[in-house]
Amino acid sequence: IKVNGFPCKDEANVTEADFFYSGLANPGVINNSVGSVATGANVEKISGLNTLGVSLARIDYAPGGLNPPHTHPRATEIIFVLDGELDVGFITTSNKLFSKSVKKGDIFVFPRGLVHFQKNNGDKSASVIAGFNSQLPGTQSIAVTLFTSTPAVPDNVLTKTFQIGTKEVDKIKNKLAPKKT
Amino acid sequence: IKVNGFPCKDEANVTEADFFYSGLANPGVINNSVGSVATGANVEKISGLNTLGVSLARIDYAPGGLNPPHTHPRATEIIFVLDGELDVGFITTSNKLFSKSVKKGDIFVFPRGLVHFQKNNGDKSASVIAGFNSQLPGTQSIAVTLFTSTPAVPDNVLTKTFQIGTKEVDKIKNKLAPKKT
Amino acid sequence: IKVNGFPCKDEANVTEADFFYSGLANPGVINNSVGSVATGANVEKISGLNTLGVSLARIDYAPGGLNPPHTHPRATEIIFVLDGELDVGFITTSNKLFSKSVKKGDIFVFPRGLVHFQKNNGDKSASVIAGFNSQLPGTQSIAVTLFTSTPAVPDNVLTKTFQIGTKEVDKIKNKLAPKKT
Amino acid sequence: IKVNGFPCKDEANVTEADFFYSGLANPGVINNSVGSVATGANVEKISGLNTLGVSLARIDYAPGGLNPPHTHPRATEIIFVLDGELDVGFITTSNKLFSKSVKKGDIFVFPRGLVHFQKNNGDKSASVIAGFNSQLPGTQSIAVTLFTSTPAVPDNVLTKTFQIGTKEVDKIKNKLAPKKT
Amino acid sequence: IKVNGFPCKDEANVTEADFFYSGLANPGVINNSVGSVATGANVEKISGLNTLGVSLARIDYAPGGLNPPHTHPRATEIIFVLDGELDVGFITTSNKLFSKSVKKGDIFVFPRGLVHFQKNNGDKSASVIAGFNSQLPGTQSIAVTLFTSTPAVPDNVLTKTFQIGTKEVDKIKNKLAPKKT
Amino acid sequence: IKVNGFPCKDEANVTEADFFYSGLANPGVINNSVGSVATGANVEKISGLNTLGVSLARIDYAPGGLNPPHTHPRATEIIFVLDGELDVGFITTSNKLFSKSVKKGDIFVFPRGLVHFQKNNGDKSASVIAGFNSQLPGTQSIAVTLFTSTPAVPDNVLTKTFQIGTKEVDKIKNKLAPKKT
Repeated sequence: IKVNGFPCKDEANVTEADFFYSGLANPGVINNSVGSVATGANVEKISGLNTLGVSLARIDYAPGGLNPPHTHPRATEIIFVLDGELDVGFITTSNKLFSKSVKKGDIFVFPRGLVHFQKNNGDKSASVIAGFNSQLPGTQSIAVTLFTSTPAVPDNVLTKTFQIGTKEVDKIKNKLAPKKT
Repeated sequence: IKVNGFPCKDEANVTEADFFYSGLANPGVINNSVGSVATGANVEKISGLNTLGVSLARIDYAPGGLNPPHTHPRATEIIFVLDGELDVGFITTSNKLFSKSVKKGDIFVFPRGLVHFQKNNGDKSASVIAGFNSQLPGTQSIAVTLFTSTPAVPDNVLTKTFQIGTKEVDKIKNKLAPKKT
Repeated sequence: IKVNGFPCKDEANVTEADFFYSGLANPGVINNSVGSVATGANVEKISGLNTLGVSLARIDYAPGGLNPPHTHPRATEIIFVLDGELDVGFITTSNKLFSKSVKKGDIFVFPRGLVHFQKNNGDKSASVIAGFNSQLPGTQSIAVTLFTSTPAVPDNVLTKTFQIGTKEVDKIKNKLAPKKT
Repeated sequence: IKVNGFPCKDEANVTEADFFYSGLANPGVINNSVGSVATGANVEKISGLNTLGVSLARIDYAPGGLNPPHTHPRATEIIFVLDGELDVGFITTSNKLFSKSVKKGDIFVFPRGLVHFQKNNGDKSASVIAGFNSQLPGTQSIAVTLFTSTPAVPDNVLTKTFQIGTKEVDKIKNKLAPKKT
Repeated sequence: IKVNGFPCKDEANVTEADFFYSGLANPGVINNSVGSVATGANVEKISGLNTLGVSLARIDYAPGGLNPPHTHPRATEIIFVLDGELDVGFITTSNKLFSKSVKKGDIFVFPRGLVHFQKNNGDKSASVIAGFNSQLPGTQSIAVTLFTSTPAVPDNVLTKTFQIGTKEVDKIKNKLAPKKT
Repeated sequence: IKVNGFPCKDEANVTEADFFYSGLANPGVINNSVGSVATGANVEKISGLNTLGVSLARIDYAPGGLNPPHTHPRATEIIFVLDGELDVGFITTSNKLFSKSVKKGDIFVFPRGLVHFQKNNGDKSASVIAGFNSQLPGTQSIAVTLFTSTPAVPDNVLTKTFQIGTKEVDKIKNKLAPKKT
């Protein structure tokens, strides 16, 4: 039986493991140019969350690391700082930035669907636990979405959007392209 | 009485005018650098929409005009092309672009919260009617949000996000800044 | 995988065609006694609308044509007049009629579940685009529902409801019965 | 404080009376031509129901009485027969009638927004308790809505809808008009 | 096709039986120590309720019978007294008890998720019909949940919760354990 | 303006402080017999959460401490262990206990409305961050609800529920009664 697109076990086969996850216990490995990594604890990892409308994630930041401007199309986010200090902010549909410096133990809210970011301007690592009111909130990182999608967003959309030339667009695309291995 | 933050008239004072709007009858006036303008027919204009969860908008495009990449935090959008031809697209949370050329009479869907755009690559004007499943879907235009908010998004967020220098950030800010009059 | 009763493709097989529909580009063919026809652009036609809670429809009216009193059990409707002029109205649960003459470019709202109609009292064709906050709003045309269902609503229900005789009931049934071919 | 358009008492002033209602204890008084009467136990009578999304009603039927075809725009209805026997039915959006004879202790469901009716074809009174998944489901009685609203639905809408003449329309209007006193 | 985890018949095979249930016509058989029994009329019994968000139940009480403190995790309950007299109550999250004596024809509301109970302090049987805004509200009887689950709630949780000794815990467990046959 | 019963500031007066809270930074002070304390970060503390449907809480446990069996009437809970080790569990409506030992960094889910508990069986303090899909989930601690409400739940309800005598009921009431100061 499928409920909501995810498998629904027969009740007799459900165990406590379906409500448990240990994958956020350790910091995620940061090996990208922005210096941060997010790890989800959602219905893809915890099958017992299906239909329950909530999930968590852990975000880790290297010194100087940035969780670049992004949206969650299906959820509000509320973070609790586990460690370190962060400058965080979101922009409203009236184009106002609400931002704040937060430190260990602080909480900040990023309302549903709005562009937001966190920046570690300190010299030590930082980490947060984030709560979402969706079992699968989804994430859309703005720059990566616009400059590295497959297929590519047309150049004439990007040049007009950012009022830059094709050459600058290509430069950004190259910088943001996923590293080959 | 307020319901949902909007005024709820006493039933005796409600008239047919509360369910009517004529503000989308004519093309919006386009006087910006992107060459498009969106006009909403939502609960701010039609008080009878309060609590009803639906609204419309009209978008007009000059030849070459772009409705630049943006999101609606609270709604899915479905457009019907009134006139002209457009190249439209949205990017998923898996970073895939779904795009298509649409012409008069065609319909296209932009799922809830995802970044999407429409570009008029033809040599005549174009226009669409858009339906939303929210009485006030909200709009967040990505480039304007990141480069022209008040207060400004910190430079070190923007340089790291787009992997460009402060000078390039300033150039984009200047280009996108609202024109003074 | 089925979600919400409609098929959910594997992500790898989804294409832009799943978010596109061209079936509202031309006026529907009107070959009935009321002189109007509605064409839906809902999840039955656009599989990408599944779970997204919005859809459109196009309604075309011959001169003198009527979209007879009906309800949508699962949605509010908001129309935009593409062409022509219409007299439109809905009745509330307090038995008040809210009606208005609307013309090209005008918008009118029919709140969730209420009986409403549109009448083309002009001498040229008219058409509207309608937005709904449901992927499948459903339609129940009142007279057709009561007088032509299979099996038939019992005569003693209809005579008592409209306070008319069996003969009048039969006359209406004959007039409204779907034409044989 | 108002929540959802209904008053929300300060917690200190809430009493058990806000969750109690005795108005369905006795059969409603039937003094109309259809021979039935519905009495609601909703948020207008029970202030504690505000935001809770459920309500009851009692419907009483004289011998031969009819609860004429009607809709509830905001709820599904599920009835339990307190006394007597009834022929009940609803029509789907595919124009199929689902009907059944029910007697004391039986349950029947009328899905959200669909036209339905109950007819007491027995020679003794009948009554039901109805549950709704809305604190204020609303009711729209089809014939009364179309033939007795204020202002009136235009005659040319009614004649075309039922394919009858103006004289027949007037006859029905007269029969259904609320009795003067 | 499954919708919401329950089977969704092909439309051609749906009949009026899918919307009908007679299982609440007679009082439930009471053969337990608390002296009451609840019988549901929910989506497990009435397949046509699937996705419709409403259900009923019947509760019967012997003289002196108790429907012991319990919660419905997914619904508000509203009862109509069919027969007899009951002392009913619920406790809020502010730890206030709202209680009342109700008799035949009275209505009382138990808000979503709160602990509530009904006690028949009279010397004749009583019964109620209960409406819920869920197709499957679920029931969690507090004492049975804590003292008879499989596996058992750890003794040190129960002793600390009720501030009693292991011996008293065992005594309650024995008393509440399902009777062997 | 009030939305949803909570104040909605004029947009011009909203600041970043409306989305911030530092009250969970330090362990709560534990001065009760169960040895645990929960501190909420919900709409009562963070006005910007209004209408957003999510909140956090922090729970601290002394060695041996218990968060006694309780429910949240309006939310699912998902915990992340900040420190220490806990034995946690919930009971389903089928009376099955799902339990697990969790340690620093582990996650566990308590589905909407079900009775659940956490017990610190270790010899050092423990703490968790809990996410909820409600801006105000509410908490109902089972034993406290039944034995210390105002006014009191009738003795004959408690004796029959737990199958104990009035003397035992009184003993529990005395033990659980809030300490006078």
